[in-house]
Order: sequence, then C-alpha cells, then structure tokens
Amino acid sequence: DKSEIRQLRYMLNKGLRPVEAAKLLEKTPPKERELLWNLLNQENEGKILQHLGDDLQADILSRMDANELLVVTEGLDSDDMADILQQLPETVMKELLRIMDKQNRKRVEKLLSYPEDTAGGLMNTDAVTVRPDINIETVLRYLRRHTELPQSTDSLFVVSRKDSFIGILPLSRLLTADPQVMVREIMQTDLAPIPADKPAQEVARLFEDQDLVSAPVVDEQGKLLGRVTIDDVVDVIREDADHSLMSMAGLDEDEDTFAPALRTTRRRAVWLGINLITAFIASAVIGLFEDTLEQVVALAVLMPIVASMGGIAGSQTLTLVIRGQALGQIERSNIGWLFNRELISGVLNGTLWALIVAAVAVIWFSDLTVGIVIALAIVINLLAGAMAGTLLPMILKSAGIDPALAGSVLLTTITDVVGFFAFLGLATLFYG
Amino acid sequence: DKSEIRQLRYMLNKGLRPVEAAKLLEKTPPKERELLWNLLNQENEGKILQHLGDDLQADILSRMDANELLVVTEGLDSDDMADILQQLPETVMKELLRIMDKQNRKRVEKLLSYPEDTAGGLMNTDAVTVRPDINIETVLRYLRRHTELPQSTDSLFVVSRKDSFIGILPLSRLLTADPQVMVREIMQTDLAPIPADKPAQEVARLFEDQDLVSAPVVDEQGKLLGRVTIDDVVDVIREDADHSLMSMAGLDEDEDTFAPALRTTRRRAVWLGINLITAFIASAVIGLFEDTLEQVVALAVLMPIVASMGGIAGSQTLTLVIRGQALGQIERSNIGWLFNRELISGVLNGTLWALIVAAVAVIWFSDLTVGIVIALAIVINLLAGAMAGTLLPMILKSAGIDPALAGSVLLTTITDVVGFFAFLGLATLFYG
Repeated sequence: DKSEIRQLRYMLNKGLRPVEAAKLLEKTPPKERELLWNLLNQENEGKILQHLGDDLQADILSRMDANELLVVTEGLDSDDMADILQQLPETVMKELLRIMDKQNRKRVEKLLSYPEDTAGGLMNTDAVTVRPDINIETVLRYLRRHTELPQSTDSLFVVSRKDSFIGILPLSRLLTADPQVMVREIMQTDLAPIPADKPAQEVARLFEDQDLVSAPVVDEQGKLLGRVTIDDVVDVIREDADHSLMSMAGLDEDEDTFAPALRTTRRRAVWLGINLITAFIASAVIGLFEDTLEQVVALAVLMPIVASMGGIAGSQTLTLVIRGQALGQIERSNIGWLFNRELISGVLNGTLWALIVAAVAVIWFSDLTVGIVIALAIVINLLAGAMAGTLLPMILKSAGIDPALAGSVLLTTITDVVGFFAFLGLATLFYG
Repeated sequence: DKSEIRQLRYMLNKGLRPVEAAKLLEKTPPKERELLWNLLNQENEGKILQHLGDDLQADILSRMDANELLVVTEGLDSDDMADILQQLPETVMKELLRIMDKQNRKRVEKLLSYPEDTAGGLMNTDAVTVRPDINIETVLRYLRRHTELPQSTDSLFVVSRKDSFIGILPLSRLLTADPQVMVREIMQTDLAPIPADKPAQEVARLFEDQDLVSAPVVDEQGKLLGRVTIDDVVDVIREDADHSLMSMAGLDEDEDTFAPALRTTRRRAVWLGINLITAFIASAVIGLFEDTLEQVVALAVLMPIVASMGGIAGSQTLTLVIRGQALGQIERSNIGWLFNRELISGVLNGTLWALIVAAVAVIWFSDLTVGIVIALAIVINLLAGAMAGTLLPMILKSAGIDPALAGSVLLTTITDVVGFFAFLGLATLFYG
C-alpha cells in the first residue's frame, strides 16, 4: 500500500547511503528489485549504479537509452562514469559520448583509453598538485582556498611546470613541517609512480606491500595522469580473491546471486556440458573392461573409491598451487621442489589409505586379490593427482588459460581416467 | 661461497623492505629458508616476522626462547607485538610478558584482551587526539611539534577530557579550514565509532562500504581505545576471501605453500580420511544392487555419469550460496526465492542433459531401458544437488559449522548416494 511505498522510497533515496542501497538491490530477487529500482529518484540512480556488480549493472544499463544514461551519469566522478560506459554496447556508448558536454567527454575518453584492469583504468583524475619551489606556508594557504580535498587524499603530488611527476608530499609531513621550508626539501621521492599500463593485480600488490592510501599514475613520459586510491584497490583485491573461488566452480565472480532462473540455467548448462564430456571419457575407460566387470562385480562397487581419492588429493594440490600463483609465490625456481613434495606426500598418503581400503575390501568381499588391486590403484591415482595438481596450473598459466577455470575439470578427467584404468586394468591382469 | 653469502645478507637486511623479505622467505623451500633466516640481522627479524603467514610464523617462533623473542619483538608496534604473542604457547607468552618493560607490557596486555578477529584485536594504539574546544591554529601548532604522524593517519580523533570519543577531524578538513574556527565546529560526528568487540569481518565491510582509511575503536563506555587502519583491514579482506577457496579443498588459509612433506602429509591425511568415509558410503549404496549390476554391466559403465553431473551442479549452487553468505547477501527472507530458482534451473538443465545422455546411452548399448533409467536418475540427482547446494550451507551456518569446510564433503556424499541409488534402484525396478 501507499504509506509502505512512501517509506520504502524515503529509505532508498534518503535513509540509506548509495552503497547500502546497492547492496539491498543485490540481495533482492528480480521482480522486487525492479520495483525498488523504480522507486529511486533519478539523481540517485547513477550513485547507486556504480556500486552494483557488473552483471546486475549491465542488466539495468541495457534498459536505458543514451539520453537517460546522460541524466543518470551526470555528476559522477569521471572514473566511475568510465566504468559504467565500459559496460555499454559500442553504439550506445558512442551516442552517449556524443551528447555529453565537451569537458566531461575529454576526461572520460582519456580514461576509456586504458583497459579497465590496469592502473589507468583504476585511476581518478582528481589529484591535488603543487610545485616543488614554493614553501609550505604557501601550500597551506593554497589548500585553504579549497572547500574540501578529494576523498582519500593522504598526499599531494609534486609536479614540474610541464606536469612531470617529481615526488609526493604526504599531508602528515605537510602538517608537521616548518612553514618556511620549501616543498622540494621535504617531499618524498622514494615512491616510484605507477605506469598507466600496469595490471590492476600488480597495483594491488604494491598497495598491500607498501601500505599505500593513494599513489600517482604516470604516462610513458612520466607525466602525471591521475591517482589510484585504496578504495578502488580494495575492490580489485576482493574481486581477485573471489575469482579463484568462483572460477573453480565454473562461475563468474561478477555473477548476480539473484539472477533470473533462465539466465542461470543457460550459464550453468555450458559448465555441465563440459563436465559431461569428462564423465563420458571416464565411462569409455570403464567400458574397456566390461568383461572383467561382468566377472567380478566387486570391482563396480569399489571403483568410485579409487577415482574419488585421486580427485580429492589432486584438488588439494591444485588449489594450493592456484593460490600460490595468485600470491606470486610459485616460480620456475621452486616448482620442482613443490612437485617433489607433492609426490612424496602422495606416496605416503597413498600407502596409508591404500592399506586401509585394501583391508576393508578384503574383509567385505572375502577376496585377497581385490585388496591388492585397489591398494595399487589408489597409490597410482594419488600420484597422478599430485602430478596433475602441480603441473596443470603451471602449463595452463603459461598457455594463457586461467588455471582456476580449466584446472578442476582437467584434473578430474585425469584422476577419473587414471583411477578407472589402473583399477580395472590391474584387475584384468590379476583375474585374467 | 662467501661473496654470494655477503650479497644475500646485504639484500635481505638492506636491499629489500621487510615485507619483500617476508615474501621471499614464504616462497623458499624449508632448507634454503632456514639458511636465509640465519643471514638476517637480529634487529630485522621482528619486522620481517610480522609479515609472514601464521603457519610459517608459528614455525619460526617455536624455535625461540623468551629472551630471544624479547630482542626480536623490540621496537615493533604494540598491535604487531600482540599478533606475534598470540602465536606463542601460553607459558612462553607469559614468560615474555614478565621480562618485557612495564609500559610495553601494559599496552600489549590491553590488546591481548581482545580476540584477534575483532576490532580490538586489529587496532593500533597510536591515534592522535585533540580536544573540541581549541581552534584550528592551535591544532596545527600542536601537530608541528610532532616529527611525523603515525602511518595511515587521515584524521585526528576528537575526545573529551575523560577520553570519550566525540568525533573525527579529517586532515583534509583541517587543511582547508579557517585557522580561527574551533575544532567542535568543523569536526565530523556522523561516523559511529567501532565497538572493540565487533568482528573483523564486519569492520572490513564497514571500511569497504564507507571507503574509510582509519576509524576509531571505543570500549563499552565510549572511551577511545585506538584506531583500525586500512592496511590491517586489507589483510582481513585477503584472508577472508582466501578462506572460502582453501576451506573448500580442506586446506587452511594460513597454510605455508612450502611446508615440509611430512607436515603436508599429516594434514592432508585427515581430509582424505573424511572423504574416504564418503566414498565408502557411496560404495555401500552400489553394493545394495550387486545383482542388478551383474545382470546389466552397462549400469557399471554409466553410473559415474549420474553421480558426477549431480556433484558438479550441486557444487555450483553450493559455491554461489557460500559466496553470497560471505558477502552478507543471503538471509531467511530471500533463501526461499533462491531455493526455487535453483530447483527450476535444476529441472531445466536436468531435462536437457538427461535427454542427451539418454540418447548416447541408447545408441551405445542398443538398449532403450538404460536410456530411460539414466534420464530419470540425472533429473533426480540434479534436483538433489540443487537442494543440497542451497540448504546445506544455511543449515551448517546456523549450526555454527563452517559451510566452506564441511559443505563440499557433505554435498558429494548426498549427490553420490542419491545418484547411485536412483540410477541402480530404478534399473532394478525396470529390469527386475
């Protein structure tokens, strides 16, 4: 009813911060979400839009034309505007740029020229700059002419007359310095400026390692282009870490949790299809040994154990290596050690569990042979899992394929094929 | 040889920042790691130690006695010292506190009274405070008496005479304000201070939502205790995101990638053992249908397909729900919608792939019945996967069990049992 709707409208537009309203939309199923979106005042749409996940953002943007987009994106920071524009189809984006005012267009076009996942794509253009040859008192007087400094400003950037980056002047140093000292004398020059084409992941690592709040971005000639701030870096870190988790299940890190059923079905279908191929390959391997299976039905009962143990052990190695790659820990120089460690661990755990499984199998089926066969097969498959788990991500990465996405499917294929082949093949030898 | 060692020693102690040296140690296998550690000057050990992962840190700490620890931790920030102390065995910790100088002990004991994963455990005690009833000029003069402000200081905290938190004075506002204005007039009071017992995860979400660089921490009476800074929050975010990924493979997020083979084997053995129980349950289900399997060997060839499709579909749902939980998106109010969506998606994808698998099976084994049986079993198992994937993490979470750790094992158990039972049970009906 009406008073409830009035309350909702108030809450969405005034009660919640834009980021909170965005979170509310993200956890609302599609129909109610559309109702909520329609209650937004137009001037809030852009501020909320920029906090939504890519998937949902693209969804809402696809229903707007260039004129609506112009109104919605008005007043956004140029980096947020560029992020939104990157979600648009080519034609709509061009149309929107055409009708934008000239100054905004120039700024946004500059940002759009850098890929989203580079320092240039992350940066803002709102850095406060000072010259090296003025004194601190002048800087303080200059700052007092601003009503406010841009968000996450922890330092001013010192630039030459031609906008070349020279150094940074942290606010904390500015505040503790003698007012008569020159900027040049107290500026810091040990922080290397970030080239605009540096990948976002590396920028994030730089911020983490050096505990930065903001950092200057420069072009090839060393000219200051803008600055990256910690809030954008935090988003990169969050997405980066989500990426491995989601990819290993064949999902996208931007996936809208409450996407409609049909879209979900379509996306999942692809992943199931790929995995079905894997399953058919495993079945084909089993099919090679139909005669043996007919003879000893205990083999059909026990064979999933061999495949599953290899898969579990392999997944542990794979996950560890993928995480190590993401943290930049794994290189050519230490992969050999890791490979050996995983092999040793595979042999030890393989032997331990092979003996236990063999004992259970011998008692269950009153058959010594089945115990010997399953013990050997488990050791072989745990070794296969260890090798595949270490080498697959290395090979995939150097082939430019995302190990988190392709790794788990390939690993399961290997441990299924090796597991079934070793177990049923050995059985055929022993029983034949 | 000697000149190489001299070079290494120089690089470790002078050439690299402590965080870089820590990263180098983390990606070095155990033996070489020990050599590198022994090349460190004692005054660098503490600074490097605080940047190591928990697993490796505990390893190194376990080889030191209280006196060595006292030297190593000298000069660390009190929050870093508290973090290290928390890794120590009770007796060593008490001994170290006993021989520490009094002022340090008091500070560290205060921090140790808060669990590591709360705002109190994250905070530093180095906040710069001012009174509300002085003017900006006085603040600026007061700051100039410092040689430097603590790291990540983006605002001063305004406190009463009794240290009660009143508001914050951002440096950017301080710098743009009229020097004659009083602190009270320009301070911000809209940022609620963080209670010391707030969980670290929620603190991280607060920082992300409001783009904070630092925030005040208070006790129950509203007295200022210290401040949380973005660099510590970034660590929380990184670990938090790593947690889901690693737990789903039965690994710990603090796991040392280059842990020695024996330790790795011991830890992995537990996870393999748990999964072995799952595999035996699945085998027991298959064992119920030995007669049918003996009669129709095609069933043994095809049965892994049913189990695998259910497992893959279920894992996708499980991962989506676990991520949604971590982001705070999933609640009682919307889980019903999600459950329905997953069921619909399960029916649709189940039907699609059931038809395809059935067609292949009928052609492969020239047997219509096997096609009908596998089609039905796949639809049933995809539904089981969808239900288990949605409900398991909800049930586990409300039971206080980590869904990322227990979820995947339980899910596989369910999809294996349901898959084998449905497929072989239906086959027994149809062929019997």
